[in-house]
Amino acid sequence: MFQANTRYRDLSESYLFVTVARKMREFAQEHPDADIIKMSIGDVTRPIVPAARDAMLRAVNEMATSEGFRGYGPEQGYDFLRQAIAGYYASLGVTLDPAEIFVSDGAKSDCGNLPDILGSGNRVLIPDPVYPVYRDTNIMNGSEVRFMQATQENGFLPLPDENTEADVIYLCSPNNPTGAVYDRAQLKKWVDFANAHGALILFDAAYEAFVNNPALPRSIFEIDGARRCAIELCSLSKTAGFTGVRCGYTVVPQELCANGLSLNKLWLRRQSTKFNGVSYITQRGAEAVFTPDGLKQVRENIAYYRENARTLTDMLDALGWWYTGGKHSPYVWFRCPDHMDSWSFFDRLLTETQVVGTPGAGFGACGEHFFRLTSFSTHENTRAAADRLLRAYR
Amino acid sequence: MFQANTRYRDLSESYLFVTVARKMREFAQEHPDADIIKMSIGDVTRPIVPAARDAMLRAVNEMATSEGFRGYGPEQGYDFLRQAIAGYYASLGVTLDPAEIFVSDGAKSDCGNLPDILGSGNRVLIPDPVYPVYRDTNIMNGSEVRFMQATQENGFLPLPDENTEADVIYLCSPNNPTGAVYDRAQLKKWVDFANAHGALILFDAAYEAFVNNPALPRSIFEIDGARRCAIELCSLSKTAGFTGVRCGYTVVPQELCANGLSLNKLWLRRQSTKFNGVSYITQRGAEAVFTPDGLKQVRENIAYYRENARTLTDMLDALGWWYTGGKHSPYVWFRCPDHMDSWSFFDRLLTETQVVGTPGAGFGACGEHFFRLTSFSTHENTRAAADRLLRAYR
Repeated sequence: MFQANTRYRDLSESYLFVTVARKMREFAQEHPDADIIKMSIGDVTRPIVPAARDAMLRAVNEMATSEGFRGYGPEQGYDFLRQAIAGYYASLGVTLDPAEIFVSDGAKSDCGNLPDILGSGNRVLIPDPVYPVYRDTNIMNGSEVRFMQATQENGFLPLPDENTEADVIYLCSPNNPTGAVYDRAQLKKWVDFANAHGALILFDAAYEAFVNNPALPRSIFEIDGARRCAIELCSLSKTAGFTGVRCGYTVVPQELCANGLSLNKLWLRRQSTKFNGVSYITQRGAEAVFTPDGLKQVRENIAYYRENARTLTDMLDALGWWYTGGKHSPYVWFRCPDHMDSWSFFDRLLTETQVVGTPGAGFGACGEHFFRLTSFSTHENTRAAADRLLRAYR
Repeated sequence: MFQANTRYRDLSESYLFVTVARKMREFAQEHPDADIIKMSIGDVTRPIVPAARDAMLRAVNEMATSEGFRGYGPEQGYDFLRQAIAGYYASLGVTLDPAEIFVSDGAKSDCGNLPDILGSGNRVLIPDPVYPVYRDTNIMNGSEVRFMQATQENGFLPLPDENTEADVIYLCSPNNPTGAVYDRAQLKKWVDFANAHGALILFDAAYEAFVNNPALPRSIFEIDGARRCAIELCSLSKTAGFTGVRCGYTVVPQELCANGLSLNKLWLRRQSTKFNGVSYITQRGAEAVFTPDGLKQVRENIAYYRENARTLTDMLDALGWWYTGGKHSPYVWFRCPDHMDSWSFFDRLLTETQVVGTPGAGFGACGEHFFRLTSFSTHENTRAAADRLLRAYR
């Protein structure tokens, strides 16, 4: 009799967004005239920029001709795109060999698949609150998961201390869900810890394009020593609105080794065995994002979201509620007023203002008493939501 | 110190296509005037059909408008495509619930990722010769891999007998690399074996569109009892020339269970945790393939390749060389003349006719003394290659 992977039993189902949707639906049924504003949405809403559109239209037409048709591409991505991504890193002052860049269908896939090349005996350290994929994928893989507490006291940016024990460390900066951003000195502490203890950092830079201050790092490879201890995951989902187009990339430096095995070679072997590359059409669209025109256009979209984030942080400043995020992140994370727990505040906000957000407890125990709003809505809805909160709680 | 997955050390590097390319390059350097014909190519060459092109052009334009933009889609695929695939299965007489169909970026990904939801203690039975992904992905996962011999005696279609022991069985029909196709009675033997022994069949139907006789099964779900023991993988790569566009699908029946866990639910959990769905653009292209126009157009491409296969099998009939495949498959698999081993015949064919094929030994020990030619070239090159073999060896 064949066996299933029974570790899936240890996964806790996340009913967060299901519950949010159900509560919203029930409220709408009871109050058919209510004008509900969704500020819980974690997905972009601005359309694909013209540079990417035009490149993808050209690629589709090419594929429909005998001369332009392309079949299987390199599993690790076409050189034209790996070069373009290396050029983008160069603009951050980071030098990468294109052979260190692996193009994929998204950071979620890479994040989920990276444990494939790691042993299952590693002690895995994950922040709480957290993007649930870090935790679940390691449970599926049979690794021991430990949490580090991200709290108001540490600004939701935990750092290593003398008690920290970890073989693999997940960091996400700018963070999902808190929007907190590590500065260079803080990130250097993690890099030094990893190099001192032989630990591996998996650095999720999916929100790097929202960093708005050159003093803050967008890539862990801006930190000395990171090439010896870190893998970086990034994505065009938030940078260029590719959540529905699907393109990400992962950087695995040549220096990274364990058990005498090169992680770059292991990842290449994993990807060339279990993956067949990203659509040529998508890769041409991604290449166009990294052209001067493409970058200008996607930065206009990010500026649009950033203006929404400012609307939200201005509101929180006026209310005097503690928050993090919003400045270098599409997420604003604030402390619920009146010591409310986050699900009670969710209900109160929905009832009193018809604004829907996301309760922090849904992202982990340390998220209790906090609440997330996102900047991915329209200017009009974001301003209306901010006005409602100001009227209700000032 | 973090650990790598040291099971990667047990993988043997496949130098098959690297060696083929090197030998071809060396010959070309020594014989700069030689007109080499590549009949080793395993990738399609006909362009994307107009129905898929037009649907993808529309989708790209939609994504670039505020009204038409779509962000994250369902990880398991859009309903419009799952319905279209269910409709395709209905045309084969197979009834599927769309919730049993999971859209992916290709059968190679699904094939590589399916061991994620299985226990690592399963005894895995794989045909030899074989598509190397079945073997490598199970080695990475730590499962015990056994081989079953596909030989000239069993027509390269091994069947279970009283000595067969297996928890997970890989079958590929029409087969890569041999082109052999199981008939209904043969497939029923495997289904009965699996149901009697609690084994799981992973059925790779990637070449089903080449089956040219309604008496032969295109899907394992045409066989009674298969819903209790089989997962089917399929792809638009060979059906619609999507090798560079990337779209496949996997069918996991609701009935499949192990350790009290539903495999359909496990796969949904795996995909929603480690995958973020296929590009909306690609899914619209795939949907168009299953329309009457789309099916007509892709079948014209398959007829083109089939004519090439007939050119090759006519040549082998004239030479009197034993072969399988070609009738219901893009691959023709023949016995090397004069008891030659397959690499020696490769060298002889290249030297004497300047035709490049693939030595069977590269696909496994049982492939020794056999040779693969493909039908994916042009009519002109295929006829020229066949003429050269006839002149040289008749």
